[in-house]
Amino acid sequence: MRALRFDGKEATLDSTAPTPVPQPGEALIRPLRVGVCATDLEICKGYMGFNGTLGHEFVGVVEEVVGPDPRQLRGKRVIGGINAVCGTCDLCKAGLSTHCRQRTVLGIQGRDGCFADLFTLPLVNLIPIPDQLDDDTAAFAEPVAAALQVRQQLRIEGKPFITILGDGRLGLLVAQVLAGMNASVRVIGKHPGKLALCERWGIKHRLLADVGLRNDQDIVIDCTGSAEGMGTALSMVRPRGKIMLKTTVAPDASIRCQDLLAQIVINEIEVLGSRCGPMNEAVIALTRGEIDVVSLISKRLRLSDGVKILQAAAAPGVLKVLVAID
Amino acid sequence: MRALRFDGKEATLDSTAPTPVPQPGEALIRPLRVGVCATDLEICKGYMGFNGTLGHEFVGVVEEVVGPDPRQLRGKRVIGGINAVCGTCDLCKAGLSTHCRQRTVLGIQGRDGCFADLFTLPLVNLIPIPDQLDDDTAAFAEPVAAALQVRQQLRIEGKPFITILGDGRLGLLVAQVLAGMNASVRVIGKHPGKLALCERWGIKHRLLADVGLRNDQDIVIDCTGSAEGMGTALSMVRPRGKIMLKTTVAPDASIRCQDLLAQIVINEIEVLGSRCGPMNEAVIALTRGEIDVVSLISKRLRLSDGVKILQAAAAPGVLKVLVAID
Repeated sequence: MRALRFDGKEATLDSTAPTPVPQPGEALIRPLRVGVCATDLEICKGYMGFNGTLGHEFVGVVEEVVGPDPRQLRGKRVIGGINAVCGTCDLCKAGLSTHCRQRTVLGIQGRDGCFADLFTLPLVNLIPIPDQLDDDTAAFAEPVAAALQVRQQLRIEGKPFITILGDGRLGLLVAQVLAGMNASVRVIGKHPGKLALCERWGIKHRLLADVGLRNDQDIVIDCTGSAEGMGTALSMVRPRGKIMLKTTVAPDASIRCQDLLAQIVINEIEVLGSRCGPMNEAVIALTRGEIDVVSLISKRLRLSDGVKILQAAAAPGVLKVLVAID
Repeated sequence: MRALRFDGKEATLDSTAPTPVPQPGEALIRPLRVGVCATDLEICKGYMGFNGTLGHEFVGVVEEVVGPDPRQLRGKRVIGGINAVCGTCDLCKAGLSTHCRQRTVLGIQGRDGCFADLFTLPLVNLIPIPDQLDDDTAAFAEPVAAALQVRQQLRIEGKPFITILGDGRLGLLVAQVLAGMNASVRVIGKHPGKLALCERWGIKHRLLADVGLRNDQDIVIDCTGSAEGMGTALSMVRPRGKIMLKTTVAPDASIRCQDLLAQIVINEIEVLGSRCGPMNEAVIALTRGEIDVVSLISKRLRLSDGVKILQAAAAPGVLKVLVAID
């Protein structure tokens, strides 16, 4: 079968990849649409030290199930949680199973991803989706869940000034989630074309070059996907304010760490790391049409386009690249 | 008068420093005892870019007051808050006056400190102390307040596992504060001699070399005063746990920042920066004898000892160096 793989040095489309064999409790899934995430691009720069098939944002059809199939998922369209967990370690038992000590993560850590004709995931990870949710929209479930996580981690009281730093895919999703909760949300980015979407949604926006770094925001959410994001966030957040960090990037030796840590202490900042989110809630929000994801699709490609998929996603001005596996 | 000053390159005892002139609303204070803080040593490595008289932990006598003296502080023994603020900027008005945009900080930022025969502070910063509080104990008010701040920033529910990283001055004060709230507190340090104080106080303790870095602590408080502290804390805290950062150090280019930031995101850690604390509560806790500070005094020197004061505080195994100004 075909698989878009990263071997530690470069990404290539492998046309002779072995078909994965699902283990007991796992499903074999045929992806329909797969989205490119900033994390995929960072992995190709060395992030997580991952080698294998890329991709973790999918909607697909369950082809095969090994063992009991109590929810009768075979043949159904599904999206799925990307963390495959043991269920028996101390963290799983403590209700922190997305942090399982033995976990593998789809296309990120120890498990081949979904830029392939077929891939596997544990059955418990899968969530069937309603018919009215089309493939393009459903493929956004994973990043929309990551955006919805902001709602779980931040308690919004009063009318705090919230800045979302970064006008990329994740920033624009987080903006839509928070704009519904608070009218003082603004998106700060570098790309007029991307910020134009905020204009359409009625969300405040400014170019980074036009805003002062005045330590006056109550909450800053770093969705830049850039090593400089944390420094900019620290220049924007007020003393005793909060920074939510959603950026994971490959190491960049040029950033001076102790400067950042000293600012956290001196200004008594609260920093919240934020990663995955609630997939079930993402399906509900997407089915209800609460979040506009279709406007984020910049380009449609096919798996046969190979590394062009990654190049397209890395190009300036591009938001989501959606890949059809056919 | 005499003043222990740092000129940006080296610290020296200046015997011909000009006597400071208090401004309206300020007091001229004659210090009785001054403590050496890790921050003083970091300043001498370049932290904060401060030039001037060092020292911010004091107990002293009010010699002179310029303007009204409604609390009749002249002649009284006082301790004092180290942030001199404007009272009119947006942060002061928002109740965040310790973060005043125009602030000066005693011996740290834009204001000569208290390792001198005389120094000044705004009258509103000063807190008179009761007769039963001796000079040695009162000189600990500032670091004890910093330790008490932990109590304000952390909500302790259930019996979380708390690790205090660092067996130095601040770590041992924080340990005493938290041990009263939670029996699962342990101090991890590198110095058997310092950890012996925990034994005396009935607080759990271990040598860093003897503990596994297993991501299993609910809360880790970094009091190491070392650039490596944050990395160690991230290896100890469990996913979705909290790190309180009390370490401020001069920049160290050898620490890889993005590794630390990526761990914060992946493990969804909450990082809390923590700086100054409630001076009033420190006076109360010290007067009641709730915190043993006298055992922390490793050495007593005089201002006339000059730079030996800083050398003594930097020596291995030394806790607090207390300086008599006479």
